[in-house]
Amino acid sequence: MKSTEFTSAAAAGVETGKQRVTGSNLAEVIGELVAANRILFRQGVVDAYGHVSTRHPQMPHAFLIASGTAPALVSADHIVELDLDGHEIGGTPQSLYLERFIHAEIYRARPDVGAVVHSHSPSVLPFSVVPTAQLRPLCHMSGFLCSGVPVFEIREAAGDGTDLLISTPQLGRALAATLGPRSVVLMRGHGSTVVGSNLREAVFQAVYTEINARLQREALALGTPVFLTAEESEACVATVSASIDRAWNLWSDQI
Amino acid sequence: MKSTEFTSAAAAGVETGKQRVTGSNLAEVIGELVAANRILFRQGVVDAYGHVSTRHPQMPHAFLIASGTAPALVSADHIVELDLDGHEIGGTPQSLYLERFIHAEIYRARPDVGAVVHSHSPSVLPFSVVPTAQLRPLCHMSGFLCSGVPVFEIREAAGDGTDLLISTPQLGRALAATLGPRSVVLMRGHGSTVVGSNLREAVFQAVYTEINARLQREALALGTPVFLTAEESEACVATVSASIDRAWNLWSDQI
Amino acid sequence: MKSTEFTSAAAAGVETGKQRVTGSNLAEVIGELVAANRILFRQGVVDAYGHVSTRHPQMPHAFLIASGTAPALVSADHIVELDLDGHEIGGTPQSLYLERFIHAEIYRARPDVGAVVHSHSPSVLPFSVVPTAQLRPLCHMSGFLCSGVPVFEIREAAGDGTDLLISTPQLGRALAATLGPRSVVLMRGHGSTVVGSNLREAVFQAVYTEINARLQREALALGTPVFLTAEESEACVATVSASIDRAWNLWSDQI
Amino acid sequence: MKSTEFTSAAAAGVETGKQRVTGSNLAEVIGELVAANRILFRQGVVDAYGHVSTRHPQMPHAFLIASGTAPALVSADHIVELDLDGHEIGGTPQSLYLERFIHAEIYRARPDVGAVVHSHSPSVLPFSVVPTAQLRPLCHMSGFLCSGVPVFEIREAAGDGTDLLISTPQLGRALAATLGPRSVVLMRGHGSTVVGSNLREAVFQAVYTEINARLQREALALGTPVFLTAEESEACVATVSASIDRAWNLWSDQI
Repeated sequence: MKSTEFTSAAAAGVETGKQRVTGSNLAEVIGELVAANRILFRQGVVDAYGHVSTRHPQMPHAFLIASGTAPALVSADHIVELDLDGHEIGGTPQSLYLERFIHAEIYRARPDVGAVVHSHSPSVLPFSVVPTAQLRPLCHMSGFLCSGVPVFEIREAAGDGTDLLISTPQLGRALAATLGPRSVVLMRGHGSTVVGSNLREAVFQAVYTEINARLQREALALGTPVFLTAEESEACVATVSASIDRAWNLWSDQI
Repeated sequence: MKSTEFTSAAAAGVETGKQRVTGSNLAEVIGELVAANRILFRQGVVDAYGHVSTRHPQMPHAFLIASGTAPALVSADHIVELDLDGHEIGGTPQSLYLERFIHAEIYRARPDVGAVVHSHSPSVLPFSVVPTAQLRPLCHMSGFLCSGVPVFEIREAAGDGTDLLISTPQLGRALAATLGPRSVVLMRGHGSTVVGSNLREAVFQAVYTEINARLQREALALGTPVFLTAEESEACVATVSASIDRAWNLWSDQI
Repeated sequence: MKSTEFTSAAAAGVETGKQRVTGSNLAEVIGELVAANRILFRQGVVDAYGHVSTRHPQMPHAFLIASGTAPALVSADHIVELDLDGHEIGGTPQSLYLERFIHAEIYRARPDVGAVVHSHSPSVLPFSVVPTAQLRPLCHMSGFLCSGVPVFEIREAAGDGTDLLISTPQLGRALAATLGPRSVVLMRGHGSTVVGSNLREAVFQAVYTEINARLQREALALGTPVFLTAEESEACVATVSASIDRAWNLWSDQI
Repeated sequence: MKSTEFTSAAAAGVETGKQRVTGSNLAEVIGELVAANRILFRQGVVDAYGHVSTRHPQMPHAFLIASGTAPALVSADHIVELDLDGHEIGGTPQSLYLERFIHAEIYRARPDVGAVVHSHSPSVLPFSVVPTAQLRPLCHMSGFLCSGVPVFEIREAAGDGTDLLISTPQLGRALAATLGPRSVVLMRGHGSTVVGSNLREAVFQAVYTEINARLQREALALGTPVFLTAEESEACVATVSASIDRAWNLWSDQI
């Protein structure tokens, strides 16, 4: 898929307060969401499972997400509109992702969030199951981890007999509460959820959460690493956020 | 290979008790078995060696498997029908897999098993040779490991001078005995065997046994991991089994 | 891209003292620089970020570098001419790399340097954040590491609140001072910079810095490794430098 | 390259005592040697460097090898005939591999050897630099490691100021002496050399030396592994050698 397909959407990108919508036209937003699905697969964040959503450009209390399909196979026809209770708005009934409440409840709790990525990305998952390990920003690309990366332990919310999935609004609210104002929350034995103010930022941060986890695992094997200070992290986020399109352009060229 | 090639087989899928046959037509079953061979290669479970079989849809005391060929090169012409003594039923004599007794004896011992995958998958093999390591379910995708993953030590069955291969009915029975009612058995210095109630489930479980082994190795390097409880594992299996087709559809699209 | 595209440039290659320019014609130099960008991506040294430059073949106080684009997408149209203050010479204003001062100040401080690669290559980065780890030459391909691999700690130059980037001439000079007369400098929490007397050597050394880091990480996990002696390193550099074109020809064939 | 291209060579394969030549026709042998070069690249054993040779089918005191080119780019035109002093027999002078004496002196010392692979394969190299680590057969595919894997320390043969390369007949003889009657010799800080009775066996053993090294590294991180006994190793070699063509057919299909 050529990056030029996304050029007009980018050109039409509007920013409305903290919640930035890339592209004011629904078709353009859907086009970017399809690209996001394929990018996340190509970059190794999602496999046959995982999902990405973006807040609806015209309805702040709704979001766009694929119906139950592997991200690499998503096309515009798979995109559905869901409200914040996880119900489909109009349209023919589809097989929806069981865990759509991750997205719904985060959009409800976080007006600043414009996009959500949920994945089982391989280097991040081990950090979710080792209580003594803590994912922290190791390099300038991942300053967004600076506010801490909490681990959601579903046993605290629903006991030790669940299927670990966020399959109800209640569990979605518990996950959103653990996420708090941060960018990333790990989910024990399951994966992680990464948010961003817009779709490209959420995708970017999901990719670099995975990269940071791999770097941190390898650094820990070498010795005791130096992490970014809070000030460094903030400065890095400010600089890096201005160059996210460079990565997006490459990644969309490769799908 | 397009996933649509398998649609009619899936549409025609029938479930008969615990042993579910996907597709009642022999040609469709063979088509899925060819796809399974190629998927297992593409997903890194088998290399030039390893094999996958499915119980014969019309003859419960027989199974379908490729003749001695690398899985990635298997086509419908390679599929042969073997009885539970490992003899070919009719057909021209072919070069059969030496280890067909893995399949034959598991089908004999386990009426609930509809498909078997044998591989040397790379992350699993180290767990087979380190007595103090134990493969356990680390994430919701691999709850099927919950009943334990025994290691078959061929020295106990046949002394310490064998070629490690399951090349006789007797060794096949010993392996089946170690597997017991479980889904996965490791084979020391050799690899593993994964079973499922049908072909898609066996392939899925072989892929996620490999993924769980990699995740567990990396988690162990970080510290002491939290594994799934038995209740969590059972709940995960129940949920995940309903979405195996999502992975199968992606994987068959990529071969 | 076929290696034959570079044959004429190689044939026209001239060596002028220590600073060797491959190809005296500007168009040929630009062609090699475009190839270098793509090679570094294909060989896993750069991802969406990182950059490579070569000293201007006619103006020793200027260099050629892409404008702000992912290396894998660079074409001849992206190449700009910058002076050693990081200003573009003539041409239309472009979006320049923030960190062009890495290149500018190293060219100023090191007349022997003909090309510079800056990257976040994945196996090298962990060595930049663990003070007790030290990248050293482990094999004959990486003798160029023998003069030591210092780590640039930006906190010493600019405090602990920076974005870690070399975004000013002053920081470029501090980095060049840490590099000194060596081939490689690590940058804490950021990546590394590798220089060479010409473009092919810089690319070669950037690739083998990454390879050496991976080998060293794995060797350290096995025990205490034997590194090259200083004499071995020097002898290796002398021999290996004569066969860099073998790698370049392969790598340019693969882009 | 389709495996069928090699079918006639295989059909014409002759075995003469221990030194088996696959294909009695020179053109067929050259075809297999070209395939071997590309296979070794595709399977990750060689990168831009490394080389493979086969004993000359008509002249036991000569061998066939590519001239100085990256293995992935080798075609029939690159293959030269060298005598056991490393001189080219007839033909136009070419740029020969500096380390052709590895091959020449092993053919001289080992009449049973029909093919030689020299590489810097990535998982093996760390074992060459850690004196306390010892590569040993961990699984049934690598029983050929059972006679031990010595490490050639060039400092013992030529002091600690060499470029580590086997660039003279004398060093070739020292390496061959360390190899002795075995299949694999590691070379400190450099790589390894693997021999076989014929080309396919040497390629097979080079691939599985690399695989065994990776498996052993990962097993050692988990705990203390159980290795094959000498009897198991011998039995494995006897069985596995009969199925090398299965791997060769797959690998040649993928180049």
